Amino acid sequence: MKVKSRIWIEHNDQIFLGLGRVRLLEQILLDGSINKAAKSLKMSYKKAWKLVDSMNEVSEKPLVKTSSGGKGGGGTLVTSFGKQMISHFRELETKSFEFFDAQSKQLNDWK
Amino acid sequence: MKVKSRIWIEHNDQIFLGLGRVRLLEQILLDGSINKAAKSLKMSYKKAWKLVDSMNEVSEKPLVKTSSGGKGGGGTLVTSFGKQMISHFRELETKSFEFFDAQSKQLNDWK
Repeated sequence: MKVKSRIWIEHNDQIFLGLGRVRLLEQILLDGSINKAAKSLKMSYKKAWKLVDSMNEVSEKPLVKTSSGGKGGGGTLVTSFGKQMISHFRELETKSFEFFDAQSKQLNDWK
Repeated sequence: MKVKSRIWIEHNDQIFLGLGRVRLLEQILLDGSINKAAKSLKMSYKKAWKLVDSMNEVSEKPLVKTSSGGKGGGGTLVTSFGKQMISHFRELETKSFEFFDAQSKQLNDWK
């Protein structure tokens, strides 16, 4: 038997960050653009922008900043707060995997 | 910020027990009948029977036993294995709430 889980973070009772949103942030970090990140993840542009807007709205501080024009033609940055949230989510995920692995062992010992 | 989670138990990579199934088992224990339990939970009979069949199939030992006729006209029993699984699931749930509460605190301390 194996204990499985899905985790997410809420802020003021609204979904703030889950695996899908974190994967998107990570991809924006890699691609420097929401549109490119959406393409990499085979997600529609519309969905990607909606997720980014929703995250920024729920968050106390923006996770992602877009700039248009200028040198390099603009693009999208993950803020330092956004980067910290990615780290915290991934750390939380690792800890919860460890926790549930231990719980699975207990369940199998009992059985 | 609050860390939220949904947990379930798999057995041989198949869903074995989640909150919905455990609620159904608990209600069968209270009502002594799958049909009555389905009614109490406002669930269709078909869905309730399907869930019970699925649980018994995935499980090494039956969780629920139905008998027809005899003194009292038959009914449905949760086996002692089934009762232990209810306890284990609820215990797991409590432990994971505690775990994620602690994680939420860490997240808010950091913020």
